[in-house]
Amino acid sequence: MAEIITIGEILVEIMAKEVDQKFYETGEYMGPFPSGAPAIFTDQAAKCGSNAMILSAVGDDGFGRINLDRLKNSGVDISSIKVLDDETTGVAFVTYKENGDRDFIYHIGNAACGKIDEKYVRESDFQDIKYLHIMGSAIYNEGIRAAILKAIDLAKKKEAKITFDPNVRKEIVKDEEGRKLLAHILKISDIILSGENELFYLMGIEDEKQCIEILFNEGVETVIIKRGSRGATLFTEELELIIPPYEVEEIDPTGAGDCFAGTFVSCINQDIDVVQSARLASIAGAMAVTKRGPMSGNTTFHELNKIYDKIYR
Amino acid sequence: MAEIITIGEILVEIMAKEVDQKFYETGEYMGPFPSGAPAIFTDQAAKCGSNAMILSAVGDDGFGRINLDRLKNSGVDISSIKVLDDETTGVAFVTYKENGDRDFIYHIGNAACGKIDEKYVRESDFQDIKYLHIMGSAIYNEGIRAAILKAIDLAKKKEAKITFDPNVRKEIVKDEEGRKLLAHILKISDIILSGENELFYLMGIEDEKQCIEILFNEGVETVIIKRGSRGATLFTEELELIIPPYEVEEIDPTGAGDCFAGTFVSCINQDIDVVQSARLASIAGAMAVTKRGPMSGNTTFHELNKIYDKIYR
Repeated sequence: MAEIITIGEILVEIMAKEVDQKFYETGEYMGPFPSGAPAIFTDQAAKCGSNAMILSAVGDDGFGRINLDRLKNSGVDISSIKVLDDETTGVAFVTYKENGDRDFIYHIGNAACGKIDEKYVRESDFQDIKYLHIMGSAIYNEGIRAAILKAIDLAKKKEAKITFDPNVRKEIVKDEEGRKLLAHILKISDIILSGENELFYLMGIEDEKQCIEILFNEGVETVIIKRGSRGATLFTEELELIIPPYEVEEIDPTGAGDCFAGTFVSCINQDIDVVQSARLASIAGAMAVTKRGPMSGNTTFHELNKIYDKIYR
Repeated sequence: MAEIITIGEILVEIMAKEVDQKFYETGEYMGPFPSGAPAIFTDQAAKCGSNAMILSAVGDDGFGRINLDRLKNSGVDISSIKVLDDETTGVAFVTYKENGDRDFIYHIGNAACGKIDEKYVRESDFQDIKYLHIMGSAIYNEGIRAAILKAIDLAKKKEAKITFDPNVRKEIVKDEEGRKLLAHILKISDIILSGENELFYLMGIEDEKQCIEILFNEGVETVIIKRGSRGATLFTEELELIIPPYEVEEIDPTGAGDCFAGTFVSCINQDIDVVQSARLASIAGAMAVTKRGPMSGNTTFHELNKIYDKIYR
């Protein structure tokens, strides 16, 4: 039974081959790549050695199959991913700009994974849960918002910890209600893994230290600020530790933050201390960007530990 | 004001580069190509010299823009294509098999064009209508079925002719109700352009002559059986004429039938007799397959007429 559970979108990514390629011009694309922030998280949590599960849905099509195959191969418990006959697996088209920003065209909320609702959240899946991970990207419609709130209730009943990555994207959180829901989850979380700007956006305060103080006062026990290629900072009540970046050649940044979170939660679930877990997560986030495709750079615990040993021992 | 009106899906096609490429394996794709059977029809009807309009919707994204740009450039009246903020333009992924068959993954009914309903059908657009063209591919949900029935009523009130291409795809017409609706439209049409198997499927009779006799008895005035690379046959109450294929090198067959229909309706709308119209349509269908992309091989009346003169004069 799964100790780490998440919920949300499974999709394929279709990636423009050229930098600055326009969606309104015919060009070349690579894909499908298995994707979806919660799916990447779960894949990495399982690869790293934990029993992990995702509650989601795909269509009965090739894009669903490539995801199911991938997740199963990584050791994810796929028994609560429904295959829906009349729906199509989600798709995200992505194109990179010169400055590193990305543009997306999404079929997510209207796709198979957009059908997730409270019925997908069954108490029987939550018997052994230790961590419920919430991805902020996964609040794309009413059904899944209700499902997430139900999952939080079930997890709290089992005294599992809530881990949260706000993962806010302008294309998905268009409404104030969505922002409020994410701000609410922030306050009831035990562990937060977030970019700095996401935190500012959700808390309405542009000061990192102040945000973290407020979160600690709310009962949050650990905050990790993910800064991409600039590394990360780990905050607990006792310590503040800069995690320097592990330097790599960047091929494709998509999924790095999800992979960071998957590694961190998988490591603490295996009773590795927070400092080592954060360092391993930082290495995993770096390794994630060295390959094309959101999950292509996911790594095993063994691979991460070899790099960790070189740096820290 | 438009003399030829159609209604239905506007989407982009994303095309696998390799023959037999699998949707469950990462590969290379070309796209987006402006597409959607009714859109291809309208594009060709306008290119061929008629005032043509499509009632549809796209998202406020690059995939919508490439379609709007293309249709406008071809002379289509795009004033009744709504651009929807909260929806995504439809997408069809296509891969060709060794035997020439195609596999699709669709986001259509759940995309912007899936929002079409009766409200999209406004009497003001129907002032000058002479032909309402119905594409069988466009019955992908309840809203558009109601819209099509309303459009037929408005067209009949204006004494416009109903032209119909059943264009039945197994991926879209999964229900008996859809089949019944198409069979109903078949009987109230004035002009039918159909593949033979589609006709058999809708009429439940596996005999071409018998089908055509029944349709004539129902009041249909013209039937054209489109046979792809084998040419076509034109049936009226007075004549039965084989239209031999215009031989070309096939690059991409998608859109050939829609282009055939767009040319035929555009020509008869310009008072060209049915025989010449059918021959021009057959040439247009052939030319359509010589370029990659559903609308890439669309042709002007002038281009078609030059080929017609070589063959028939």
